[in-house]
Amino acid sequence: MNSEKTTYIFQDLQLLFNKTLNTYNVGSSPAGLYDPIRYTLGLGGKRLRPVLLLMAVDAFGGNIEDALPAAMAIEIFHNSTLIHDDIMDQAQLRRNQPSVYKKWNTNIAILSGDLMIIKSYEALNNLKTTKFQEVLTVFNKVAAQVCEGQQYDLDFETNDHIELPDYLNMIRLKTSVLLAGALQIGAILGGAEPDDAKKLYKFGENLGMAFQLQDDLLDAFGNEQTFGKKIGGDIVANKKTFLLLKALDLAQGAYKDELTSLMNNKNIDEDEKITKVLQIYRELDVKSLTEKQMIKYFDKAFSNLKEITIEESRLDALYQVSKNLIERKS
Amino acid sequence: MNSEKTTYIFQDLQLLFNKTLNTYNVGSSPAGLYDPIRYTLGLGGKRLRPVLLLMAVDAFGGNIEDALPAAMAIEIFHNSTLIHDDIMDQAQLRRNQPSVYKKWNTNIAILSGDLMIIKSYEALNNLKTTKFQEVLTVFNKVAAQVCEGQQYDLDFETNDHIELPDYLNMIRLKTSVLLAGALQIGAILGGAEPDDAKKLYKFGENLGMAFQLQDDLLDAFGNEQTFGKKIGGDIVANKKTFLLLKALDLAQGAYKDELTSLMNNKNIDEDEKITKVLQIYRELDVKSLTEKQMIKYFDKAFSNLKEITIEESRLDALYQVSKNLIERKS
Repeated sequence: MNSEKTTYIFQDLQLLFNKTLNTYNVGSSPAGLYDPIRYTLGLGGKRLRPVLLLMAVDAFGGNIEDALPAAMAIEIFHNSTLIHDDIMDQAQLRRNQPSVYKKWNTNIAILSGDLMIIKSYEALNNLKTTKFQEVLTVFNKVAAQVCEGQQYDLDFETNDHIELPDYLNMIRLKTSVLLAGALQIGAILGGAEPDDAKKLYKFGENLGMAFQLQDDLLDAFGNEQTFGKKIGGDIVANKKTFLLLKALDLAQGAYKDELTSLMNNKNIDEDEKITKVLQIYRELDVKSLTEKQMIKYFDKAFSNLKEITIEESRLDALYQVSKNLIERKS
Repeated sequence: MNSEKTTYIFQDLQLLFNKTLNTYNVGSSPAGLYDPIRYTLGLGGKRLRPVLLLMAVDAFGGNIEDALPAAMAIEIFHNSTLIHDDIMDQAQLRRNQPSVYKKWNTNIAILSGDLMIIKSYEALNNLKTTKFQEVLTVFNKVAAQVCEGQQYDLDFETNDHIELPDYLNMIRLKTSVLLAGALQIGAILGGAEPDDAKKLYKFGENLGMAFQLQDDLLDAFGNEQTFGKKIGGDIVANKKTFLLLKALDLAQGAYKDELTSLMNNKNIDEDEKITKVLQIYRELDVKSLTEKQMIKYFDKAFSNLKEITIEESRLDALYQVSKNLIERKS
């Protein structure tokens, strides 16, 4: 088999996936239920999870077209969590458009999110494979973990004793495992040996951790032009990111008092708060410490790939997407 | 095969199902997510859907134990909809206990309901059958329809032009199809011919319609002692039940004006409103018209059973449960 010919790059798979998504007919009546689903799926995004799934299929020499139902399932499920997360986080915007609960209402957001979960399983059920229940096992496991991660995230809002390992476990559940599960499912469908499929899962888990730490970094130190939104949102919201928890960990004496008082000050000007917190982050070297942690996860991800027992060139696309993620600005 | 020996009655299957449910380990951490699930599943209930599923398995000579994962899946899914419905309907109580969103909060109710949907698929995936994807197709279809039914129900609250056929379609989706799907899945797992499985689905659909009309009747004309809750809740809430829609349909002149004014009067004493609306219902013969419609559905359900091509005695338990439902007082 010619591996160059069969190694699809990100954009090709993104295009293929979006073409499939565009012809997806989710349903129409009652409109109050189906319009929000169409709206959410139409908001765009990188389609990272389904593309990674298809890349995994291809790496192991499987048929990409046959795996599209699984890619759809992962993307539909991911979007269902966005609709519900936006209610819980009271997020007004999603990809710069009104979130479903703002555009419609909370009840519609609850119900259309529910239906999307069911629709993700409906999409998955279009797979024709003897490994269906094996795939479903992975899907169910990571879907449940995403809920657990969101619950930890909600718990953290009212808990002032979060430690870094708690945070890392939360983002592993909330962000990483779905990436990881997408890759494992792709590997299974591609015909990978179970051990290789598990290694690809680990790769996705570590890649997801790096990805989330990078989100934390971009929110604090990104460039507003390339980042596409205002810098410092996490700081204003006192969100317990890796940066803040690391800073709270390291801060002593005056720094600690200032950071705590900035967090507790409800009347402070937002820009002033951002500037002052970033100043403390700089003094404590939090940026480079976070980068170091992020690079550690990228390195782990690369080692996971190296352990996979197929011809290395077949993993080129997965290497490349990881490298591009390291350098992303948004 | 001795059909009497293998024809389980409702209580036996309820006991078996509850035993399985009691040993079900849904998970534990984070507690904020798993406690509400355990709480909800522990609130009790008739377990009508899983028991009907198991009865269908037995009717066609299948192995009941092997089908327990499907029974669990149906019950877990049903309970997930109760958690989310209670948020949407702002229902403070569920089976005389605080609803999840009241006992915890809305975010926890959203997220634990989501996780329960996923857990229903996880339970289903414990089935060991070559017909797994066929079962999943039915499960997905009816689960999606339950969401559609709930959306129509929400839509009806703010729409004053609901006709009886709209109402019947709404309760078909919201209530009947899950009963019907449970029976169809049981039939499939029991080894029924596809046509018989579909007839059992129709039986469940008609039984569910009768069941819901009976709910409407009990809420207005039940006996508070045997019904277990206050009579007239639907009337106080202006809920568009079969009774109210039928009354609005039939009312002319003075009756129509009085009914409309009772519905629009926000300051009226609840008991006075109930008494006066019931008086109109009696004048318009709404009770017996609803009973007639209910009996029509029961009769249809019995004809569906009669069309099934297996030995009639194997369907005894399903006949019996239908007869008991006709006579229920709560």
